[in-house]
Amino acid sequence: MTTSLRSTLDFLLYDWLQAGSLTARARFADHSRETFDAVLDTCERIAREKYAPFNRTVDTQEPQFDGEKVILPQCTYDARKAFADSGMLSAAQDYEMGGMQLPYVVESAAGSFFACASISIGSNLLTTGNANAILVHGTPMQQQVFAANEFNGRWAGTMCLSEPQAGSSLSDITTRAEADGEGFEADPLGPRYRLRGNKMWISSGDHELTENIVHLVLAKIPGPDGKLVPGVKGISLFIVPKKLVDTEGNLTGERNDVALAGLNHKLGWRGTTNTLLNFGEGKYPVRGGAGAIGYLVGKPGEGLKCMFHMMNEARISIGMAATMLGLAGYYASLDYAKTRLQGRPVGNGGKDASAPQVRLIEHADVKRMLLAQKSYSEGALALNLYCAKLVDEGRTGDAEAAAQAKLLLEVLTPIAKSWPSEFCLEANSLAIQIHGGYGYTRDFPVEQYWRDNRLNMIHEGTHGIQAADLLGRKVVMQGGAGLQLLARTIEATLAKARQHPALAVYAGQLAQALQDVGEATQAAWATGNPGEALANAVPYMQAFGHVVLAWMWLDVACSVLAADATLSVAASAGRMGATRYFFHYELPKIGAWLAVVRTRDATCAGLAEDAF
Amino acid sequence: MTTSLRSTLDFLLYDWLQAGSLTARARFADHSRETFDAVLDTCERIAREKYAPFNRTVDTQEPQFDGEKVILPQCTYDARKAFADSGMLSAAQDYEMGGMQLPYVVESAAGSFFACASISIGSNLLTTGNANAILVHGTPMQQQVFAANEFNGRWAGTMCLSEPQAGSSLSDITTRAEADGEGFEADPLGPRYRLRGNKMWISSGDHELTENIVHLVLAKIPGPDGKLVPGVKGISLFIVPKKLVDTEGNLTGERNDVALAGLNHKLGWRGTTNTLLNFGEGKYPVRGGAGAIGYLVGKPGEGLKCMFHMMNEARISIGMAATMLGLAGYYASLDYAKTRLQGRPVGNGGKDASAPQVRLIEHADVKRMLLAQKSYSEGALALNLYCAKLVDEGRTGDAEAAAQAKLLLEVLTPIAKSWPSEFCLEANSLAIQIHGGYGYTRDFPVEQYWRDNRLNMIHEGTHGIQAADLLGRKVVMQGGAGLQLLARTIEATLAKARQHPALAVYAGQLAQALQDVGEATQAAWATGNPGEALANAVPYMQAFGHVVLAWMWLDVACSVLAADATLSVAASAGRMGATRYFFHYELPKIGAWLAVVRTRDATCAGLAEDAF
Repeated sequence: MTTSLRSTLDFLLYDWLQAGSLTARARFADHSRETFDAVLDTCERIAREKYAPFNRTVDTQEPQFDGEKVILPQCTYDARKAFADSGMLSAAQDYEMGGMQLPYVVESAAGSFFACASISIGSNLLTTGNANAILVHGTPMQQQVFAANEFNGRWAGTMCLSEPQAGSSLSDITTRAEADGEGFEADPLGPRYRLRGNKMWISSGDHELTENIVHLVLAKIPGPDGKLVPGVKGISLFIVPKKLVDTEGNLTGERNDVALAGLNHKLGWRGTTNTLLNFGEGKYPVRGGAGAIGYLVGKPGEGLKCMFHMMNEARISIGMAATMLGLAGYYASLDYAKTRLQGRPVGNGGKDASAPQVRLIEHADVKRMLLAQKSYSEGALALNLYCAKLVDEGRTGDAEAAAQAKLLLEVLTPIAKSWPSEFCLEANSLAIQIHGGYGYTRDFPVEQYWRDNRLNMIHEGTHGIQAADLLGRKVVMQGGAGLQLLARTIEATLAKARQHPALAVYAGQLAQALQDVGEATQAAWATGNPGEALANAVPYMQAFGHVVLAWMWLDVACSVLAADATLSVAASAGRMGATRYFFHYELPKIGAWLAVVRTRDATCAGLAEDAF
Repeated sequence: MTTSLRSTLDFLLYDWLQAGSLTARARFADHSRETFDAVLDTCERIAREKYAPFNRTVDTQEPQFDGEKVILPQCTYDARKAFADSGMLSAAQDYEMGGMQLPYVVESAAGSFFACASISIGSNLLTTGNANAILVHGTPMQQQVFAANEFNGRWAGTMCLSEPQAGSSLSDITTRAEADGEGFEADPLGPRYRLRGNKMWISSGDHELTENIVHLVLAKIPGPDGKLVPGVKGISLFIVPKKLVDTEGNLTGERNDVALAGLNHKLGWRGTTNTLLNFGEGKYPVRGGAGAIGYLVGKPGEGLKCMFHMMNEARISIGMAATMLGLAGYYASLDYAKTRLQGRPVGNGGKDASAPQVRLIEHADVKRMLLAQKSYSEGALALNLYCAKLVDEGRTGDAEAAAQAKLLLEVLTPIAKSWPSEFCLEANSLAIQIHGGYGYTRDFPVEQYWRDNRLNMIHEGTHGIQAADLLGRKVVMQGGAGLQLLARTIEATLAKARQHPALAVYAGQLAQALQDVGEATQAAWATGNPGEALANAVPYMQAFGHVVLAWMWLDVACSVLAADATLSVAASAGRMGATRYFFHYELPKIGAWLAVVRTRDATCAGLAEDAF
């Protein structure tokens, strides 16, 4: 499995994205292809040894709560330790923070080995994302005490947004944060508050994997009237450690009032503890007051903005998770199809029942299901790495390039999250299908990939939320600047593609599709009524995503055709095949999706409730 | 839940399919709307009391094998008893067979309550199908001893086709059947053979729910050289009882040599035992010989033909199962959407965060996901009941009508099986999506529906097998007579629809789609090369299925508009909304699917193995 993944990553990173050129930048000057490869090698090995063999274990030995502590299988501890010891938690950080100043695109590529081997045994992305948010919005002391101890592996991090009554609708959270007495503002760890409320769907919300857990919590500071401010403007962000610490990062021995109320029992992704947490309910009274102790991060009322830094990272990571589950299923079903004997090919010889059976991969329909998976999953991987490269560009490019990279990333983020979560799930279903009856038994891994992947259209912002973000905000903000930038970027690919006879027709097809999306965007907003424009936001996002993926494949194909002879002939044939597949089988699907957007179809929105 | 299902069934049965008119036929002369309703009432009640409350129980308390016996939860025994006591096992049979000569369409409708309440707690369709196959192909003695005791509930039945090395490829089975010594042909229960071989994926292959189990087994009788005849022509059909019986149907006290080798542990549909059975391996030696004792059914070499009778029934039943899982998810997510508060509608007022949250169903995107589910699931139910009515027509219509009904059913069977298994699975995914995070917890039923439904694209003939059957056989047999008959039948609906201004545009759209399918069929076969024609058989089947479903909805809409004022206004609005949804959102998808069929696209089939 990892052989294929490694060669795919090598191609995408070096031949396609030219990640090697990043070493010319000051931040990455100590790096080289060799140091990048060493990171990839290490991650590949840890994933193979500590993650892959235990993927089914963490599915069947779900986290248990004994009333005091969360019980996890030993393999989860071992995987966590190996990961933390590798230094990957801080790989992209500054040297001063203990990091290795690795480009984010290389970190992402390296991280894909873990996601492919076992998506749910580790939840390290939350720790990194948490620490990154503190780096950006926290005080130097908060950075040093909390972020640094997450990056070095001592502590883990969470993000606590949702509540039982407020999932997608964060403006409705009711967790309260009240100033913790006299002098609350002078605490060296930050203005000190007491938090009370319940948080739902908190991944890794409690466990014994690390000495401490740093919760980043959204809560509302009541106004002078004691009431919570409605809407997102009332939301602030707090660091709430499970165990209190001093300014040196030592545990003070005091347990904070953060109590595990229960574990969610899930369809998939079972290795990662998912919790309902009670803040300040009194189970662990602390320092003689009521409420969990938390330290304000950033300014009051700007909590959601601060947290979005973390959420955008998390969304791209979810896209990568979905992608790697898709690839894992592809590899598993490819292996199976290459060995399992069943039936005979259609046509000549197919009717000679005395001929030996052939392998599954010799059937056209099995090849179709394999190529669809390859096209979905490797395409999604290309998109995710492309987005990761934009992060690097936004951090290290010149001012204009950085601004453009950030804008493009804004537009692409909902696609990077939503598209893999929908189509790599479909890939997993095809992986099951190739296995026949064996596919739906728990003796083969593919059913678990499919279950694990089903969470990705929901967590970190549902499909509906992503679609509203895309059509309601990203393509219209700044007068449509993001959409125009995307179009110009795609047109650069079209110009390259038109120079290859094999790709010219696809360039024409994509140009038309891009125009169709642009026109549909206009038509959706023609009446200026958000209710009409957004009624079909999800079909819009599906079409938009397919256009983005077609662009990815066309750009990849340009690199294949432009490359020197060092590329594997077979791998190049596979990439060209996946490109053809996407343009022949997938891109034509946008017509049906865009039709309802263009007409602002009100069939669904207009149907009376009692008609359902 | 069942209130909605019952009203939907009433509409489809009586207002749309005019099932009441069947009582004018001699076979159903004792029946009336009242007797039909009584059957529906009974099944609705049993499903509500004995099935629905235990659907999660049978998922979590999987069948266990203690080395001797299969252990099932008590609720499975209770459900089985209630079902058998209701007489539904033989409802459609002749009075002489203990049946009530119920029309098959009414039996199907009544059976839908069970499938909706818990698909996996019962597996009675196999018993009925088994007994029906014996009725058609068995001797009077076999009918009396085996079929009658299945219909009356004493015994259960199975179908044993697949083997570990022969799933889709039945011609490769290696189970051997050899004449059981002198006078083997004179056994009153049928020519007696000894069977040896392994059978895989046998649903309800072993259990203690009934006194005995009647296995219908495909096996090969060796030729004079002792070798098995290659291909399907060598296959014969045998009755192999778990326990031997005499000609009066009494157990003789002898255990036949059919041994449970193991249980398959599945992704879903877990309540139904799924087994690997060893025939004649010597665990239960019987009557001093080697091999399990079996009795030939029909003629040697015609086993697959005989079994196909049962498989076609099973395929339609699987379509109905997929449909009812789809509907179950629709009802669950509709209930949830009507009560769960989350967020505010887009547009005016949506930005007023101090306004109270609204229910999910007030969001356009949630309505879209609900209407999609309704359109998929109720449309699939219409198709399945339409097919069931064709069975009645084939049995009781005049010669020409019967012949036409049988031909049409042949063409529709792969759609009735495949379409619900694909699109009602998608419906279940939407039901999860509406639930948000709760949808992927095991506290809500929708994740189980989705898991249960995933089996339906595989068992009783995979999607690939159905597609090859459709494009490779059904639409070309008899010079395309089946496809032409379907076209004429659809045209009758078009003629009705054109008389309603609200439907005329849909009639035009469907007429065009029908023409597109016809042209794609021609183009697929233009070179006469099955390898080229069938390379895209699955996309063809997806398009074909969408055309059939569009036809169903258009025909339903005609009935809605033609009906008198007795129909519920709200329900009619719902059916018209689902029709509009299907024509606006779904039917346009066929363009992408048919394009690759029409061009005999070789992108997948032509890709070299090493390129994957």
